[in-house]
Amino acid sequence: MSKIVSSLKFGVDYYPEHWPRSRWSKDAELMGELGFNIVRLAEFSWSKIEPKEGEYNFEWLDEAINVLANRGIKAIIGTPTAAPPPWIIKKHPDILRVDPHGVRSPEGTRRNYCPNNPNYIMHTKRIVKALALHYRDNPNVIGWQIDNEFGIDPCYCENCIKAFRDWLKNKYGSLENLNSSCGFIFWSQEYGDWDEIFPPRPPIDMQNPSLCLDWHRFLSDSWVKYQQIQVDIIREIAPHHIITHNFMGLYKELNYFKLAEPLDIVSFDYYPRWGSDIDYARAAMAHDVMRSLKKKPYWIMELQSGAVKVHTAPIPKPGEIRLWTLQSIARGADGILYFRWRSCRFGAEEYWHGILDHDGAPRRRFYEIKKISEDLKKIEPHIEGTNVKPEFAFTLSYDNLWAFDLEVGYGGKNYYGLDSWEPSLDFYRVLYSRNLPVDFVDPSKEDLSNYRAVFVPSLMLINKTIEENLKFYVEKGGILIATPRTGAKDWNNVIVDMALPGTLSDLFGITVEEYTGLPDGEKVGIETDKNVLNRKIAGKGRCWAEMLQPKEGAETIAYYTTGIYTGKPAATINNYGKGLAIYVGSFPDENLYSAILDWLMEKVDIKPAFPPASGLEAVERVGSSGRIIFALNHSEHAIQIPLKKEYYEIISGEKVSGILKIESLDAKVLKPSN
Amino acid sequence: MSKIVSSLKFGVDYYPEHWPRSRWSKDAELMGELGFNIVRLAEFSWSKIEPKEGEYNFEWLDEAINVLANRGIKAIIGTPTAAPPPWIIKKHPDILRVDPHGVRSPEGTRRNYCPNNPNYIMHTKRIVKALALHYRDNPNVIGWQIDNEFGIDPCYCENCIKAFRDWLKNKYGSLENLNSSCGFIFWSQEYGDWDEIFPPRPPIDMQNPSLCLDWHRFLSDSWVKYQQIQVDIIREIAPHHIITHNFMGLYKELNYFKLAEPLDIVSFDYYPRWGSDIDYARAAMAHDVMRSLKKKPYWIMELQSGAVKVHTAPIPKPGEIRLWTLQSIARGADGILYFRWRSCRFGAEEYWHGILDHDGAPRRRFYEIKKISEDLKKIEPHIEGTNVKPEFAFTLSYDNLWAFDLEVGYGGKNYYGLDSWEPSLDFYRVLYSRNLPVDFVDPSKEDLSNYRAVFVPSLMLINKTIEENLKFYVEKGGILIATPRTGAKDWNNVIVDMALPGTLSDLFGITVEEYTGLPDGEKVGIETDKNVLNRKIAGKGRCWAEMLQPKEGAETIAYYTTGIYTGKPAATINNYGKGLAIYVGSFPDENLYSAILDWLMEKVDIKPAFPPASGLEAVERVGSSGRIIFALNHSEHAIQIPLKKEYYEIISGEKVSGILKIESLDAKVLKPSN
Amino acid sequence: MSKIVSSLKFGVDYYPEHWPRSRWSKDAELMGELGFNIVRLAEFSWSKIEPKEGEYNFEWLDEAINVLANRGIKAIIGTPTAAPPPWIIKKHPDILRVDPHGVRSPEGTRRNYCPNNPNYIMHTKRIVKALALHYRDNPNVIGWQIDNEFGIDPCYCENCIKAFRDWLKNKYGSLENLNSSCGFIFWSQEYGDWDEIFPPRPPIDMQNPSLCLDWHRFLSDSWVKYQQIQVDIIREIAPHHIITHNFMGLYKELNYFKLAEPLDIVSFDYYPRWGSDIDYARAAMAHDVMRSLKKKPYWIMELQSGAVKVHTAPIPKPGEIRLWTLQSIARGADGILYFRWRSCRFGAEEYWHGILDHDGAPRRRFYEIKKISEDLKKIEPHIEGTNVKPEFAFTLSYDNLWAFDLEVGYGGKNYYGLDSWEPSLDFYRVLYSRNLPVDFVDPSKEDLSNYRAVFVPSLMLINKTIEENLKFYVEKGGILIATPRTGAKDWNNVIVDMALPGTLSDLFGITVEEYTGLPDGEKVGIETDKNVLNRKIAGKGRCWAEMLQPKEGAETIAYYTTGIYTGKPAATINNYGKGLAIYVGSFPDENLYSAILDWLMEKVDIKPAFPPASGLEAVERVGSSGRIIFALNHSEHAIQIPLKKEYYEIISGEKVSGILKIESLDAKVLKPSN
Repeated sequence: MSKIVSSLKFGVDYYPEHWPRSRWSKDAELMGELGFNIVRLAEFSWSKIEPKEGEYNFEWLDEAINVLANRGIKAIIGTPTAAPPPWIIKKHPDILRVDPHGVRSPEGTRRNYCPNNPNYIMHTKRIVKALALHYRDNPNVIGWQIDNEFGIDPCYCENCIKAFRDWLKNKYGSLENLNSSCGFIFWSQEYGDWDEIFPPRPPIDMQNPSLCLDWHRFLSDSWVKYQQIQVDIIREIAPHHIITHNFMGLYKELNYFKLAEPLDIVSFDYYPRWGSDIDYARAAMAHDVMRSLKKKPYWIMELQSGAVKVHTAPIPKPGEIRLWTLQSIARGADGILYFRWRSCRFGAEEYWHGILDHDGAPRRRFYEIKKISEDLKKIEPHIEGTNVKPEFAFTLSYDNLWAFDLEVGYGGKNYYGLDSWEPSLDFYRVLYSRNLPVDFVDPSKEDLSNYRAVFVPSLMLINKTIEENLKFYVEKGGILIATPRTGAKDWNNVIVDMALPGTLSDLFGITVEEYTGLPDGEKVGIETDKNVLNRKIAGKGRCWAEMLQPKEGAETIAYYTTGIYTGKPAATINNYGKGLAIYVGSFPDENLYSAILDWLMEKVDIKPAFPPASGLEAVERVGSSGRIIFALNHSEHAIQIPLKKEYYEIISGEKVSGILKIESLDAKVLKPSN
Repeated sequence: MSKIVSSLKFGVDYYPEHWPRSRWSKDAELMGELGFNIVRLAEFSWSKIEPKEGEYNFEWLDEAINVLANRGIKAIIGTPTAAPPPWIIKKHPDILRVDPHGVRSPEGTRRNYCPNNPNYIMHTKRIVKALALHYRDNPNVIGWQIDNEFGIDPCYCENCIKAFRDWLKNKYGSLENLNSSCGFIFWSQEYGDWDEIFPPRPPIDMQNPSLCLDWHRFLSDSWVKYQQIQVDIIREIAPHHIITHNFMGLYKELNYFKLAEPLDIVSFDYYPRWGSDIDYARAAMAHDVMRSLKKKPYWIMELQSGAVKVHTAPIPKPGEIRLWTLQSIARGADGILYFRWRSCRFGAEEYWHGILDHDGAPRRRFYEIKKISEDLKKIEPHIEGTNVKPEFAFTLSYDNLWAFDLEVGYGGKNYYGLDSWEPSLDFYRVLYSRNLPVDFVDPSKEDLSNYRAVFVPSLMLINKTIEENLKFYVEKGGILIATPRTGAKDWNNVIVDMALPGTLSDLFGITVEEYTGLPDGEKVGIETDKNVLNRKIAGKGRCWAEMLQPKEGAETIAYYTTGIYTGKPAATINNYGKGLAIYVGSFPDENLYSAILDWLMEKVDIKPAFPPASGLEAVERVGSSGRIIFALNHSEHAIQIPLKKEYYEIISGEKVSGILKIESLDAKVLKPSN
Repeated sequence: MSKIVSSLKFGVDYYPEHWPRSRWSKDAELMGELGFNIVRLAEFSWSKIEPKEGEYNFEWLDEAINVLANRGIKAIIGTPTAAPPPWIIKKHPDILRVDPHGVRSPEGTRRNYCPNNPNYIMHTKRIVKALALHYRDNPNVIGWQIDNEFGIDPCYCENCIKAFRDWLKNKYGSLENLNSSCGFIFWSQEYGDWDEIFPPRPPIDMQNPSLCLDWHRFLSDSWVKYQQIQVDIIREIAPHHIITHNFMGLYKELNYFKLAEPLDIVSFDYYPRWGSDIDYARAAMAHDVMRSLKKKPYWIMELQSGAVKVHTAPIPKPGEIRLWTLQSIARGADGILYFRWRSCRFGAEEYWHGILDHDGAPRRRFYEIKKISEDLKKIEPHIEGTNVKPEFAFTLSYDNLWAFDLEVGYGGKNYYGLDSWEPSLDFYRVLYSRNLPVDFVDPSKEDLSNYRAVFVPSLMLINKTIEENLKFYVEKGGILIATPRTGAKDWNNVIVDMALPGTLSDLFGITVEEYTGLPDGEKVGIETDKNVLNRKIAGKGRCWAEMLQPKEGAETIAYYTTGIYTGKPAATINNYGKGLAIYVGSFPDENLYSAILDWLMEKVDIKPAFPPASGLEAVERVGSSGRIIFALNHSEHAIQIPLKKEYYEIISGEKVSGILKIESLDAKVLKPSN
């Protein structure tokens, strides 16, 4: 293995089967020049590995692994199940998913199969078993990526309908319980037989929300279960191998906590540049979510190294690939694989560019990665055993995201006019601009006590466990901040039978006296109360406004200044146990969140890596050996940061103090001098 | 029955089956506090009434009726056919409609059945008969609502295809007649056998317009027929009960005249607030149409009492529910039922809010309705036996609305760039702003002689009856005003074989020499002739322009001032018999309509309730006991109206003269002092 | 035959079957008044000709031909296959196409059949044979139009799937060749059996681009083959008759070169006015393409004579029909048939207006055509044997247009943000504004040596024949100008394995060092080099930018002035043999194209008919008897053109010199005086 990077995985996604065998050694040589120590192989190669049923051909893959091993490069093998070969479809057309209108998925593509189809499961087991058996003892294979980028891809085939009924039976036990828990009395949908149940078909604005949520849960569980089939086989045959799957950041249709659980490592496919602008706050949040799934370092399984395949997609600017690499490491990645080695000459992703162009010639992007490799050689020793350790947490419940997105009005638009990530993103942007990272925690499972403050972004769905977890946290001294609809529904997606925020009413010390939507374009003025927050800031709420009624002991921290609730409480704070619980009755803008954050940073001692600067992303990794700060400049202009102490800049090997200047699209990696 | 309102029905739509039985008496008590005397029950409760085929369960409903009766509240029962229970769909999947692509309607929702399906008709008869037999002698049940909000919901199932062929056979008698009447020679579509006929499938811009219109007529007739099945059963079993159906205002896909005919009362589901703005002219027109269907007072079966279920829907502002209630009564309603008692905790309409919130607590909206109840106690004695008596009528032909909407260019947009209500709405807005109500009359059935003027909004489809009706009206002294395309087609949706306006050419004293569309954004200048209309007003026409050629005796009342017809006649007037016939060759703006209306009000003695004022809606109800004027202020500012005489203001009990001031979102109900 | 026009065909599309027989002689009389000498008949009349299977009825058509012949009018007969009669569909529902979701085309319309359906082919042969046999000896029938406006109309029925597999088998010979030529290794799509292949179903952004292109080729070939079936029958039975088909200008889904090949004459359906504006450059390009298909005069089979059937469609302005007629003749038409005689009273095209209105009365449009007829009488002797002879050619490859449009990013938008005609249109507009006509040449078949310069608009797909043709042309002294992606792919739609522009790299003397998309709204500054082009012009590139690397001997003619390639070559020129090859690395704006054109016009001696003027379209027809210039004024204002010599104006019969004034919407037809 290359000495350049050792514990840090550094490499590329490689498809030797796309190229003549005669080219492979040249590829390996060039990879060696980049200091690569890992490649992902064999993803989507089922028709090459098993051209006919039962006729396996591993020879080509064996040789590719060999050629790479000669340059010190190890392999992760992708199980090829994301793309069924044509012969399976010909033999079992029923493996193709069925859409809500009864139409089967197209042939000739990937991700067109049903995860509940017995025939496909049978073939999946066969191919994974064959691969695992063949490679378990190959010293150059270190692990596996299961399938590729799971997504829920709903299927309405007979197998899925039956499996959904079983899933419901398992959850509810009896039809009586099902009917009453989901309110099927509405519109005369009470079931008298499990076989009367069908998955909800569009338009979903005409369907039972509880059934819609359960259908989404079932779909997510189906993929988790399908992954588990493969994990089980590999664990049994090759227990010494690591297993991962490549996740898609803020993709939210699958329960990523569940999907991550049986894996050794979470991987992230990170493609920041799709057009003119990059939303770096959103990108950072994706990294924070990825790291949070297992609360440990993750890998970038696919890092953009060329233009993606969308219309008029731009190429990464000079310096950007390096910045994305360092950003990933800064936010907790311990592995970087670029996608992909060489732009493919054919197929649906011919314009999803790699490090090399179609002609295989190394050009600018190759040489930029060579520079990165040299930087990483210097950085690598300092990050061993470190991770990002945020003082803020956001609750993240995939069930809640689904339920929020299922709140659609007639016409199909979201009832609140918001995507379910927006309540999180709104506050995240303010934290990001202050260089404060965030952990995302599953409120139904994880302990919150390590965090100074926990943000509860419109956690509509509440069950007893979550309720107790939140209350326990505040009781013991935590600070909670919640946005509208928190506590509004039970776990079956039914609105609570109490004044809102339901069972959290005592925690926040309020009732929601009335609420209203704010139609497109309408905003509501809100002003903070100087006496409580120490600052009088005017801001705006959007989409939704609740008129709050503080109970005894709670205080108003902001008032409406326009609209039908003018003069009424818009946000409150409550003393609960040793802690504080803040409730905000609208979706606030940056001004209001900044006011709350400023107050909070005064209240509890929170230290960002660096003060804010436009274009700056600064993150710390912390370990037993100390702190290391990554300071990235995503902007077109140079940034100057006043330093409070002296630092050692790892890439240049120089000491810096006074003013730290970072050029446009450049980065500094710093260690406090002592 | 409560003494507060006696002849006026005042109540709410109530779903006791959504709530624990223990709550019912509390609900009834609160309803009593609001002076309610009626509720609508049992709509959408089939799975509760008949959980398994043939196993009826009326016990819960009996008790609910009892509990309400104890508070003096009577019941209207909704037949539950709008939502088939799951067991029917399981047993007869063929009851689900088939869309033009062959896909069945989704399960798990309402309004998914085919009205021509023999199995569904059989079950419909069973349930309606069982209900009618059970409740005919219950003194607390006063009547029935058939199904819920019928809509055409096209179905392409085998039953419908066969029924459509029979419908055509019945209409045309022979294939020869069918082929020649509809022009099937075009594109080689002459039929040699009835079984060769299929309903037109999208895209309809590629289909025969005559067949498209007949298909629409057939669909409308199918629902009218389906309603009749239920009406017949109830009439036979419970002839002493009233029967209604809840209509949807300006919904135009069903022939509402036909649907209203067998009913005792028309009901209207009135939801004005969907977003930031309310189009009160349009809302008023909906009321006028509802009242016109039977030319007698109607009910509001569902009146908005909370936010509706669309994205970012606002809550009714303080005062609005009261205003909508009074507006409804002002325009002819004799019954008000709010939708709904309590916001439902589950199901597809969990955010279609009622008077109470999900937690059942009375808050602002409850107390506003309590105030309304007190107002109505005062108003009620004065409106008994009164109705709105407009001096203007608009022709309303549903066949014509359908034909107009079927005039689509390639690409599927309307050929005129207009929705079929727009020609009506354009002039209605001007009348509304002058506080002049309108009756809508079926020109193929109703006598026009009671009206001072009749507006014919682009009545493209003409048959002999209509032609004679219009001519008779003018001959006897009436004033007719028509817009483009009037007279352009025969009743089979075929363009006439004569110079336009076809058989009405002598009535209007013109031919249309040429016409042109006005592409998006283009308008044409039009100026009235001072010598004829007594005023020279410049305005604009949109979408369409016709160059008119007046015949001997007709005069030009407006000329084009721009475009290829500059200087040519844009509108004309003709003396016909003792009356006048005006034809306008473009779709005029407010200026031009105002000019015509001003001239008309000078010409004939028309007295609006009050002079115009921004935000004011003023309507009179007239009866043997005199007149009562409702003056509503929909605006954000106070309105001042100069009074010509003294009035008695019923709500305050005070006399007013000089200036009448109405605060924002307030209303006055006035009687002339002597 | 009328003396007014002899070699020039002048007439109309006529549907006598839509009108009572008693009207026919009146129609013929009016046509005679217009000097018509030809009509197209019988298109879409299958149900009239063969009302039941095998029962033919030609009597009505015989009589119609007779009535017209009495006025000296000959007939072209349209084979009626574009609209199957209902009895065929009833008997063979399988003739209806199947869409990608498995849904059959609707009944009751036209163009709903599958061209590969054996039943429809059988009926096609029967009806065409019967017609040809019946009319081969009728002296008043001069020829045939096959079907109507062929379009690809994809079909996924079993016949088409099977035929597609055979097509592929025929093209590739072996599965090995197929798999490797198309890169089916990507996403595991290697086929082991021909029966495993299915046509690509949407979304095509997830499908193999090579298969997508072959599917498109197969669809195009299917229609060419279907046309050939009819051509073969007519050629055998009536070899003395001419055969044509009506093409749709810039419609690009069919290979129009292939479709035109077996025909005697190309016909064009020309409808310029759809809304407020007319894009006359685009319209001119359509004419140039039509003329180029066979490089000889063509006919206008349908020329707009009234408003078309799109929403708010305007009527042709006074003078426009005349202008369109003269424009067509100017650009090479030798036949003009207006669509249609009389606006139809029924059917899907009731608002696709003809010369007469629905009532059959001659009005403005009739009399304008009468004036045209008189003009043509004067012009006709001068155009005999002439044609347009451009000095510029554009390569036109339908395969390339398809491939370009198939380059879609995820989300389905074109990868370059361009429609495949745009690279041609951009430069065409500049040539059009300079009054320079263009020939479109098939680079895989046609000799380029007659042209002074050849423009290669993004000719992505290259094969050996094309490569050699282009190089041979330049070697011998030609000037070539190419835009981005030229040479980027092989004929199987696979990206070349070489630095771009691939095999043309030596011809252009460059490699493309890097490229980037320019996201929506972004443009890149480009400036020409004064030293090379003799002018320093600043312009912009859109959508795409390539950084070029000139090889030894090539020179940079323009540089980027903004973006990541600032200062780098944006366009180059290379000496190759005796000629010059220019490569432009972005999609240039008018400024840059003007700079190149100005340089080019200095370089080689190119003489436009007239200097540019806003609104002016000037074209020459050239023959042995000299030149004739058509100068059309499409604008709202008069145009003044300074003349360099004296001309004879044919319509007025006057000599003009000095300044030629053309009024708005007027035209002059000029012959040099000596």
